Amino acid sequence: MVNQKQGKQSFRLADPPVITAWASVAGKKESEGPLKASFDVIENDSYFGQKTWEQAEKQMQAIALKKLAEKANMRPQDFGLVFSGDLLNQCIGSSFTLRNMNIPHLGLYGACSTMAESLLMAAMTVGGGFSDKVVAMTSSHFASSERQYRFPLGYGGQRTPTAQWTVTGSGAALVSSSGKGPKITACTIGTVTDLGIKDANNMGAAMAPAALSTIRAHFEDLKVSAEDFDLIVTGDLGQLGKEVLLTLSQQEGLGLGGKLTDCGTLIFDVLEQDVHAGGSGCGCSAVTLCGYLLNKLKSGKLKKILFCGTGALLSPTSTQQGLPIPGVCHAVSITGG
Amino acid sequence: MVNQKQGKQSFRLADPPVITAWASVAGKKESEGPLKASFDVIENDSYFGQKTWEQAEKQMQAIALKKLAEKANMRPQDFGLVFSGDLLNQCIGSSFTLRNMNIPHLGLYGACSTMAESLLMAAMTVGGGFSDKVVAMTSSHFASSERQYRFPLGYGGQRTPTAQWTVTGSGAALVSSSGKGPKITACTIGTVTDLGIKDANNMGAAMAPAALSTIRAHFEDLKVSAEDFDLIVTGDLGQLGKEVLLTLSQQEGLGLGGKLTDCGTLIFDVLEQDVHAGGSGCGCSAVTLCGYLLNKLKSGKLKKILFCGTGALLSPTSTQQGLPIPGVCHAVSITGG
Repeated sequence: MVNQKQGKQSFRLADPPVITAWASVAGKKESEGPLKASFDVIENDSYFGQKTWEQAEKQMQAIALKKLAEKANMRPQDFGLVFSGDLLNQCIGSSFTLRNMNIPHLGLYGACSTMAESLLMAAMTVGGGFSDKVVAMTSSHFASSERQYRFPLGYGGQRTPTAQWTVTGSGAALVSSSGKGPKITACTIGTVTDLGIKDANNMGAAMAPAALSTIRAHFEDLKVSAEDFDLIVTGDLGQLGKEVLLTLSQQEGLGLGGKLTDCGTLIFDVLEQDVHAGGSGCGCSAVTLCGYLLNKLKSGKLKKILFCGTGALLSPTSTQQGLPIPGVCHAVSITGG
Repeated sequence: MVNQKQGKQSFRLADPPVITAWASVAGKKESEGPLKASFDVIENDSYFGQKTWEQAEKQMQAIALKKLAEKANMRPQDFGLVFSGDLLNQCIGSSFTLRNMNIPHLGLYGACSTMAESLLMAAMTVGGGFSDKVVAMTSSHFASSERQYRFPLGYGGQRTPTAQWTVTGSGAALVSSSGKGPKITACTIGTVTDLGIKDANNMGAAMAPAALSTIRAHFEDLKVSAEDFDLIVTGDLGQLGKEVLLTLSQQEGLGLGGKLTDCGTLIFDVLEQDVHAGGSGCGCSAVTLCGYLLNKLKSGKLKKILFCGTGALLSPTSTQQGLPIPGVCHAVSITGG
């Protein structure tokens, strides 16, 4: 049996790669939320012992990679390849993590879809026989994101009700050709969707059409429906974006069968933690997957999920130039095991 | 026969994907250099008809993609997948190009190694059976790079002798499972190498150790040597970086057999065009490959090359924080046909 392209955007893995280990690192606020028990490492120091928030982000990925190696009973230098990326300009969180570690590295940019994108690429690489023991990893940091995308923290700017809270955290998953664990059976690659949303404080609404487009493509290309999944997990539309997606899916007659949930709403107690519309950032779906979700797939509490990473492909420059916010969503179908 | 991982960093393609078409777009200064005749589109307006240089970069990629489709006798929406990335913060050159074009897209960040990285990923995707008609694309723009990485152009800052000139251009290549054209037979994925160079105006020196490391890995993993190639083409070390690489390779006893050349020295007449150490930017190796080099491979003037894309993984933030410049290099072995 060979790997097969399915429809326009999807493919099926002939020999489904296995997620044999995963690890997550989270900050203080995240550890005060509902997913606390699923994080491997919690750090209360927002600098993670470094001098700057950007280096803190590098440090989070370094800790996640080390913890992943420990849980996989491997040495980091024995990983075959790391796919990683982050939100920092020129993805320095990822590249500085891997400096002189002697691990092959391919850098990605998919904004908050990076966990799904890296997992999809790891599945292709392992499923195609090009490498083995491939890591998918990403991170985000509240403070480095705020000052890069919005305002210096010291400015004390008020946040709008539609704003999301960038998660401080890093998640890493190990994709292998054999072993025990949840399996990646099929993936759908997103197209860049833009319905003209320009409000950089309402990214959930900007990304919802991309999520709809990719979920629809996944269903059509692979001839499945919401009934085939225990959960359809977007990450991270937040409360508002999730509602937009539900409305759009009803309008277009795409049944989500009450299966939709979103990493941005899972990671925080939205009512108690003052995060407005929920969590966001590459780290949000990364730590939710590489803990809560994969743990449940491993234990059999979940049998099959569609993990849909959503990314808002804006930059401060494009926003300042008055341009809208394109969105993208990549979907990875994962079965328990 | 199946695809095979080779050594620690490399893989061989069982059924070598074919580069069936390629296209390049270049700016005015590039069109005054030695590769003029190999560009498909030349534009003298540095804005490419847009309002900003960032949108000009988007426009270059859009033109390259359209020209590629034309040369491949396809419609752009029939491309199976586009791997692309650029130097702009959050890679907006790439994401805005693909807005609402209904083409699956996976975003990459590899700095100036992006042409090689996207080609390598396209080869894996086609070689693994996951998609077909996959595009590898990137771009850079002198003006958008200068103001993002260095100084506003209006400031008129003097350039150091070691500085390189960011190429204004975009290149795109179409990788297919069948058809006529040069073939991708093997690839080597780079590791992030950092010997402590901190001068953002001497990126060639920062990237040379990464190039050495990847070329050595390619030779060892695939049991080949410089004798097996007509050219070993780095992109883009420039004059100084190339000399550093030659010195390092001699010191370490890695024979390059007089085969080394560099896209940064090919694209400009370094003595006449006031570009100091040569060309740089993602677009430099992209337009050199997707024109001059692939044309020569097609016509049989070159039989086999090792295309080694080099990237400096710095950001203005990491430079301001006093950090060194990590480098990476990915190698793609291409045979004529």
